[in-house]
Amino acid sequence: MTTLRIAEIFGPTIQGEGALIGQPTIFVRAGGCDYRCSWCDSMHAVDSSFRHSWPAMEPAAIMARIEDLSGGQPLTVSISGGNPAIQDFGPLIAMGRARGYGFALETQGSIARDWFADLDMLVLSPKPPSSNEVPDIAAFEACLAARGRGEVSLKIVIFDDADYAWARDFADRHPDLPLYLQPGNPEVDPEVPVMAQDVADRLLWLVGRVNADRWFRPRLLPQLHVMLWGNMRGV
Amino acid sequence: MTTLRIAEIFGPTIQGEGALIGQPTIFVRAGGCDYRCSWCDSMHAVDSSFRHSWPAMEPAAIMARIEDLSGGQPLTVSISGGNPAIQDFGPLIAMGRARGYGFALETQGSIARDWFADLDMLVLSPKPPSSNEVPDIAAFEACLAARGRGEVSLKIVIFDDADYAWARDFADRHPDLPLYLQPGNPEVDPEVPVMAQDVADRLLWLVGRVNADRWFRPRLLPQLHVMLWGNMRGV
Repeated sequence: MTTLRIAEIFGPTIQGEGALIGQPTIFVRAGGCDYRCSWCDSMHAVDSSFRHSWPAMEPAAIMARIEDLSGGQPLTVSISGGNPAIQDFGPLIAMGRARGYGFALETQGSIARDWFADLDMLVLSPKPPSSNEVPDIAAFEACLAARGRGEVSLKIVIFDDADYAWARDFADRHPDLPLYLQPGNPEVDPEVPVMAQDVADRLLWLVGRVNADRWFRPRLLPQLHVMLWGNMRGV
Repeated sequence: MTTLRIAEIFGPTIQGEGALIGQPTIFVRAGGCDYRCSWCDSMHAVDSSFRHSWPAMEPAAIMARIEDLSGGQPLTVSISGGNPAIQDFGPLIAMGRARGYGFALETQGSIARDWFADLDMLVLSPKPPSSNEVPDIAAFEACLAARGRGEVSLKIVIFDDADYAWARDFADRHPDLPLYLQPGNPEVDPEVPVMAQDVADRLLWLVGRVNADRWFRPRLLPQLHVMLWGNMRGV
């Protein structure tokens, strides 16, 4: 069976972002990405200079690690990255689902995969202008079309007014998707302490922004894990 | 039409707790309660010595205030308290729904009302032992039976190990309800600053608690509004 390059497997902890915020979760962070966002907070799973730290693992070995961390007690597994859609997570998801585990996937929506249909939650997070990446709309639509039995949600990181305007336009084209906006985190060095008040202040800015426009559609959430643990890895 | 005793109407802000965390919301806080929880954080809407500050309002006047605050742009209205179920919010909900507003209700589940069926979200928050209140199971079941087209979720505040054990037992009897656990806030004086780290630490304790038991069902969420604004009122 094809191996997968994995940067980290950790948990159980709680999901810190988006539609599943607060949900007990084990994270499987895939190595490798087709994007290079200016403010990437997971460069250790993106920059191929870290590739030596991404062991090639069989799906069965990943599943064994998940079962070890969770004591065999099923819970939600969130596959993130990097962009996990550059690899084939279909066999891992099939194996885990057979044992009662649920699967969420976080991806920017640049590559569609047929195994998206087996997810419980597909989180599509197209990147706004501040990332210096430009989403491919056709690829994003293909990701949406690959959805199956599970839920799909839209999560957009907002650093500034330009991102906000872009997010509103993008979201308007997908009026049926649950929408989550999340303030960007400009400090991504795990060695630098994060000030909880700074995280709070960025969310308060976003609350003020949507209130001023009376745009009541998006849910506004912080990166709760950053409020709890700063930029520490493995939590 | 019967008037309603209202302690506060404020917003739009974001919902800070439970299933709708992050959702833009206007809060209508009803005055009066059939409980007196030891750690109540809304005594200004509970203790009848505050009754002079709860104007008796017609539903139409409440709706006019909601429309004024939201500029007539529909959003979620959360009816809280006190225990709003001691009054008849049916006419207000019918009026708001006709204008496109959605309604959530927060109640301990001690009094069932037929208008629960018209809610988009019924949040039942039975009180654990630290409250010094004892939930009436038959009344709680009647609240569940009154559910209609909307969602129902269970939210339980946890101060200590005894609350945690009680919550687990209570939740086990309702395996189909989405479950949210929320650390208690021992400091409820709006004049006393809240330390964000203290709020974080209480959530971290709860994360450790469910992890130790590998009880992966509940979602664990803080009072996000307390992290953002402390105990300030009207936000």
